[in-house]
Amino acid sequence: MTDFFWPGDHRAAELFSEETFLEALTAVEVAWLDTLVETGVAPSDAKADLFGVVEPYHDEWLVEEAEAGGNAVIGLVALLRSALEDAQPVAAQWLHRGLTSQDVLDTALMLMAQDAVGGLRTDIRGQAERLAALMTKHRGTVMAARTLTQHAVPTTFGVKVASWLTGVLDAYDDLDRLVFPVQVGGAAGTRAALVELGADPDISARLAERLGLVDALPWHTVRTTVTRLGDALVRCTDAWGHIAEDVLVLSRPEIGEVTEGTGGGSSTMPDKKNPVLSALIRRAALSTPQLSATLHLAAAQQVDERAGGSWHVEWATLRDLVRRTVVAGSQAFDLIAELEVHPDRMSATLGGARPGIHAEQRRMAELAGHAPGGVYLGEMDRIIEATLERARRTFEVTS
Amino acid sequence: MTDFFWPGDHRAAELFSEETFLEALTAVEVAWLDTLVETGVAPSDAKADLFGVVEPYHDEWLVEEAEAGGNAVIGLVALLRSALEDAQPVAAQWLHRGLTSQDVLDTALMLMAQDAVGGLRTDIRGQAERLAALMTKHRGTVMAARTLTQHAVPTTFGVKVASWLTGVLDAYDDLDRLVFPVQVGGAAGTRAALVELGADPDISARLAERLGLVDALPWHTVRTTVTRLGDALVRCTDAWGHIAEDVLVLSRPEIGEVTEGTGGGSSTMPDKKNPVLSALIRRAALSTPQLSATLHLAAAQQVDERAGGSWHVEWATLRDLVRRTVVAGSQAFDLIAELEVHPDRMSATLGGARPGIHAEQRRMAELAGHAPGGVYLGEMDRIIEATLERARRTFEVTS
Amino acid sequence: MTDFFWPGDHRAAELFSEETFLEALTAVEVAWLDTLVETGVAPSDAKADLFGVVEPYHDEWLVEEAEAGGNAVIGLVALLRSALEDAQPVAAQWLHRGLTSQDVLDTALMLMAQDAVGGLRTDIRGQAERLAALMTKHRGTVMAARTLTQHAVPTTFGVKVASWLTGVLDAYDDLDRLVFPVQVGGAAGTRAALVELGADPDISARLAERLGLVDALPWHTVRTTVTRLGDALVRCTDAWGHIAEDVLVLSRPEIGEVTEGTGGGSSTMPDKKNPVLSALIRRAALSTPQLSATLHLAAAQQVDERAGGSWHVEWATLRDLVRRTVVAGSQAFDLIAELEVHPDRMSATLGGARPGIHAEQRRMAELAGHAPGGVYLGEMDRIIEATLERARRTFEVTS
Amino acid sequence: MTDFFWPGDHRAAELFSEETFLEALTAVEVAWLDTLVETGVAPSDAKADLFGVVEPYHDEWLVEEAEAGGNAVIGLVALLRSALEDAQPVAAQWLHRGLTSQDVLDTALMLMAQDAVGGLRTDIRGQAERLAALMTKHRGTVMAARTLTQHAVPTTFGVKVASWLTGVLDAYDDLDRLVFPVQVGGAAGTRAALVELGADPDISARLAERLGLVDALPWHTVRTTVTRLGDALVRCTDAWGHIAEDVLVLSRPEIGEVTEGTGGGSSTMPDKKNPVLSALIRRAALSTPQLSATLHLAAAQQVDERAGGSWHVEWATLRDLVRRTVVAGSQAFDLIAELEVHPDRMSATLGGARPGIHAEQRRMAELAGHAPGGVYLGEMDRIIEATLERARRTFEVTS
Repeated sequence: MTDFFWPGDHRAAELFSEETFLEALTAVEVAWLDTLVETGVAPSDAKADLFGVVEPYHDEWLVEEAEAGGNAVIGLVALLRSALEDAQPVAAQWLHRGLTSQDVLDTALMLMAQDAVGGLRTDIRGQAERLAALMTKHRGTVMAARTLTQHAVPTTFGVKVASWLTGVLDAYDDLDRLVFPVQVGGAAGTRAALVELGADPDISARLAERLGLVDALPWHTVRTTVTRLGDALVRCTDAWGHIAEDVLVLSRPEIGEVTEGTGGGSSTMPDKKNPVLSALIRRAALSTPQLSATLHLAAAQQVDERAGGSWHVEWATLRDLVRRTVVAGSQAFDLIAELEVHPDRMSATLGGARPGIHAEQRRMAELAGHAPGGVYLGEMDRIIEATLERARRTFEVTS
Repeated sequence: MTDFFWPGDHRAAELFSEETFLEALTAVEVAWLDTLVETGVAPSDAKADLFGVVEPYHDEWLVEEAEAGGNAVIGLVALLRSALEDAQPVAAQWLHRGLTSQDVLDTALMLMAQDAVGGLRTDIRGQAERLAALMTKHRGTVMAARTLTQHAVPTTFGVKVASWLTGVLDAYDDLDRLVFPVQVGGAAGTRAALVELGADPDISARLAERLGLVDALPWHTVRTTVTRLGDALVRCTDAWGHIAEDVLVLSRPEIGEVTEGTGGGSSTMPDKKNPVLSALIRRAALSTPQLSATLHLAAAQQVDERAGGSWHVEWATLRDLVRRTVVAGSQAFDLIAELEVHPDRMSATLGGARPGIHAEQRRMAELAGHAPGGVYLGEMDRIIEATLERARRTFEVTS
Repeated sequence: MTDFFWPGDHRAAELFSEETFLEALTAVEVAWLDTLVETGVAPSDAKADLFGVVEPYHDEWLVEEAEAGGNAVIGLVALLRSALEDAQPVAAQWLHRGLTSQDVLDTALMLMAQDAVGGLRTDIRGQAERLAALMTKHRGTVMAARTLTQHAVPTTFGVKVASWLTGVLDAYDDLDRLVFPVQVGGAAGTRAALVELGADPDISARLAERLGLVDALPWHTVRTTVTRLGDALVRCTDAWGHIAEDVLVLSRPEIGEVTEGTGGGSSTMPDKKNPVLSALIRRAALSTPQLSATLHLAAAQQVDERAGGSWHVEWATLRDLVRRTVVAGSQAFDLIAELEVHPDRMSATLGGARPGIHAEQRRMAELAGHAPGGVYLGEMDRIIEATLERARRTFEVTS
Repeated sequence: MTDFFWPGDHRAAELFSEETFLEALTAVEVAWLDTLVETGVAPSDAKADLFGVVEPYHDEWLVEEAEAGGNAVIGLVALLRSALEDAQPVAAQWLHRGLTSQDVLDTALMLMAQDAVGGLRTDIRGQAERLAALMTKHRGTVMAARTLTQHAVPTTFGVKVASWLTGVLDAYDDLDRLVFPVQVGGAAGTRAALVELGADPDISARLAERLGLVDALPWHTVRTTVTRLGDALVRCTDAWGHIAEDVLVLSRPEIGEVTEGTGGGSSTMPDKKNPVLSALIRRAALSTPQLSATLHLAAAQQVDERAGGSWHVEWATLRDLVRRTVVAGSQAFDLIAELEVHPDRMSATLGGARPGIHAEQRRMAELAGHAPGGVYLGEMDRIIEATLERARRTFEVTS
């Protein structure tokens, strides 16, 4: 997969790719057939291996069927059934029975989402480790704090990194809380076909177990699972966007307090080193909130037992949200891992900001009735320790 | 407060009103002064009652100062200090010491948000009770399920209400998980002024306790608290929007399966009864996702130790999000409480949809090798019982 | 009107205020009654002056009626009619006849919008004059161009201002193209009541003339007028946002190439001067695109002859869009008018960026086979002259 | 190209595909080289044919370079230059000279956008023809108008179609007004390299002519061209979304006044015919406003002479906006062309809505002092004629 429209997209590899989607849909159908057999609903010769049935030359037909039916499942089931018909007629007969397109599609989305979120969690753990190290290393690296772009009072680079790490841990907590349920509802979310076929109520639990997902009541028109996923992904790009904004500012040549380890080039000025990773992360963070808004609109516009359009808009929106978040996460990892910090420039800026930057300290000391203390860094150590402690707790608790 | 641009706005009463904002800001300054005295940082004669100092005639000046400083705190502090100067010079001297505008403003937002969310939780509990009753009453009220607007298989109105209730409980869970922290960071989030003044690290915990908020490290540039609040509010309007969409469809005269209890009128057709509550709820759900997106953009564009614009855009956005959600919640309560259900029309539609609506059942029965069962409602009872059980658990656990 | 949640809001004065809304609605009803009489549809004693009928004590009742009917017109008409009933029964009888709520409300919105856009155009003309002067003055003020935050090649501050001015002129062109039509459709957009009452087809043109609006076919469900207005307003904040971003960067103390004329203060650091106007303009530009998206969603979700929710969401969205744009425009005017430029700092930065900043020039000169020219500012003069010429043309053509 | 996440995507064929993008970038470089030679800036042996140089096996390298440089141009130029180096060293030397990446990329976007918009205009003309025919045919097909879902007064299907056609013509007008300019600015938008190379100011006009684009001053940081394009595309999906919403409602089985010509199937209920085209069009209209909002945010966050992230986010956003609009336009064409109208059902609904639906007429007649007229369709004919006239004028003027 190439994407010249979204440089860096290859970092998301096969997550939510066309192929992955077809495979996930097929995996759901296979697991379902197995579950039907396992639970005695279908006879034992209904089992079948469906992987590899769809060949590249089917794509054109599938694409047209996907539009005709509104989603890819109808055509896929027809194709699989036709492939089984001669050699495995019983499997052909039982394939997909009891399910509706939305069951298969939603479950496949959850499979893909779970994979992606698993990767994100690993990436964030790596980011957190490096941020923790950076924070600790620079706990005493003094620099000028800036508010509304102007010098305020002193701070340390470690405290700034603590704010980055906090955002990243917040995002991790939200990812960690996500649940990826199967969807087994049948035509209208009542599981009527399943009952008619004699299935036990726990059949969805069996499918969930087989797929590594969580059991759930049908959620055809209650899209909280999708919007919570969307919100959690945006929380990730929020956290990395914040880091990227700081790097973009601090790596301006006039400030020069940090440098991206691997700056990008220019097509006409070969000596120029641009903070490209930060720019690309910022790009993601500019786009994901609106994608998540689309998921919410779709959730709020559920109607009947399946909505026209509100359901269909989720898939590409989620795909883009996931891939952009994964790409930004991987870029954020590199950005953090290779960031160069320039304590000398920080110190010089701080020095140049006197005496204004110490005005508050003088007034506070006067108020408290003593001479100003030597540094003016407040609870810097406590902030850093508490953040470090939270990072440790986060990754112990969840591992 | 009137709002002819947002009919129903008066239901949000004084939540996040101008007056409430000023009072909340003042409450933070008062609580802080008390905390400074209580912890021995300030002398005991620094205590002062500041309520009532700001009079209506100050508004014009305050409004101009709010723009000049970028926020309302700077002018407010100046006003309070000037009011104290003669009679209580020590209080005037200690007022606001150790804090920055953002501390006061963010804490005041949290106070107001906590109030609003408390009300929302009460409203949702009431909605859940009524939805549970409606669901139970209509557990067996058969109707035609519809997917992509067309008749699918039978369902019951109870199952539809179960989906409404599930959305509402999901929203409740997210509100329930929200945390409302104090903000005590000082000029750059390091609490340097506090340390210079000799304050103990637990001073923010003392302030939190006094205000009924939660203690926290400074979160000036980590806006997860705000975006989580925004997302949870949108989750509410998602849930109510879904209900409103169903009511709008089902109350169409050609369908007539439900009626809004109190339909709205027309300026030219006096006999007309419009589903006005549903229309107004739908309106809210159309607008809140984009407001939440703005909060995320602002969070992702934090930079330095306080961002220009990214912080400032939060206040009105949050105000609108909160008020619209509260209004929609109150309207949803009325909609649910007064909804009229017409089982006869549901039954007639279902009858008229034969034989197509039973086609799936016939095929399933044939596949299973038996005659079709009398009804085709699947796990309807189990879905309703499980949803009921969840509602019970939700409100036991949290009360 | 105060708005501590949106500092600077008072600059929009009474545009789209509650009072203005009620007055505009009343103005439409009065003009309509006059038109009915003027065209002979209603008898001459149907004329009535309705201004002043609504008193503050009616507000509470009107607010409740506005929600009950879904909009403010139904209650307002009832109130006006009841006030006329005894003394002017004929006027009471003819009031509002032939119209529907949406006619009155949409027309009132257009009246208010036309006012606001008129003001915006005047503001932009003033901005353009000052930008033109700034551009001309600094046409030769050399500075370092920056791309992706890093120094690129030389440019002049005049060229930068030319890009600001171009954005502002683009926005002006879009405002200039807006059309503000009356809405006269009756209950379902067919004007059936009017025909039944014996009105001529040109009655809407007469109303338009009376109100200073444009005549139009009914546009109840075709909301292009609203979305074009929204898009044009966002184009304004796009243009000013761009200026604000540049000022925020260039006024960083490490860069110091411009300063906001009137910097804002700090509640704890009295010497600090913040670029508050830029921060507040940036705030607006962060929020308006999502408001405009809501208008588009509403337009795309028109249905039937009037949509539930999709129509209702427009009013507050438009109010916020208009007021925020007007406020940002006024702030942008001040920002531009009082901007301090520091050519010495620009020159120093450029000097310090050698030799890298001249690398491209050397290579180009080598390619062209001559020694590098003294300056490297390209078509700077032509860009500035063309932009100036466009500004002159814009304001001659439209005045 | 397949896109199972966005069924129907194949209708956009190669518009804004990866291949098309690379070709467009290459086309710009070729045209530029030709222009340099044509104008005597470069020697005549600098001409070269670059198409076919990039082979599929280069993709992986290009993808990595695109991320490293932040965009695809730097790697592409390196690749082309290296391919030319031995056989055509002069061409290699002159390739891309005077331009910056953004020049090539923006110009390529405009080439692709102009193609897409050309196709959209043709599609809309076809839609307008069919809508005009449908409107004329059903000018007298009476039906119940509905407001807020409830029956209001009578209307005709022709009048409804007139509202659809008006929306589509509005969208056409906005597409028609779009301008697609070349971007020739050099490293910082001053054309310094070009002047150093001895180029005449009209060189950009020459390039524009060669590419079929419009000449323009550099617009690196003034993104009106992009946001106007985005807004115009959303205006299209607004118009089609409106049609789709009406079809979704009117094709509900209980209403049955229209049917999609080719309804989609179901994976489990074979007799079901879903209004799939309408659902898919609605899907597009739910997502495009937020994409356009992203373009506006990016425009408002231009800074320096090229912004990090704000520029980069445009490409995929525009790609998605264009492709989704093109797909929806093609689907809307099919929807309109094959729509089945059921005057009998319309008439039956209207008949069943008596006497309420005639209440207004009775009151108006009474007010006017005569018996109610036979029909109550107002200026139906005038509305239809005026809309028809506008459609005729639109396509004469622009063809």
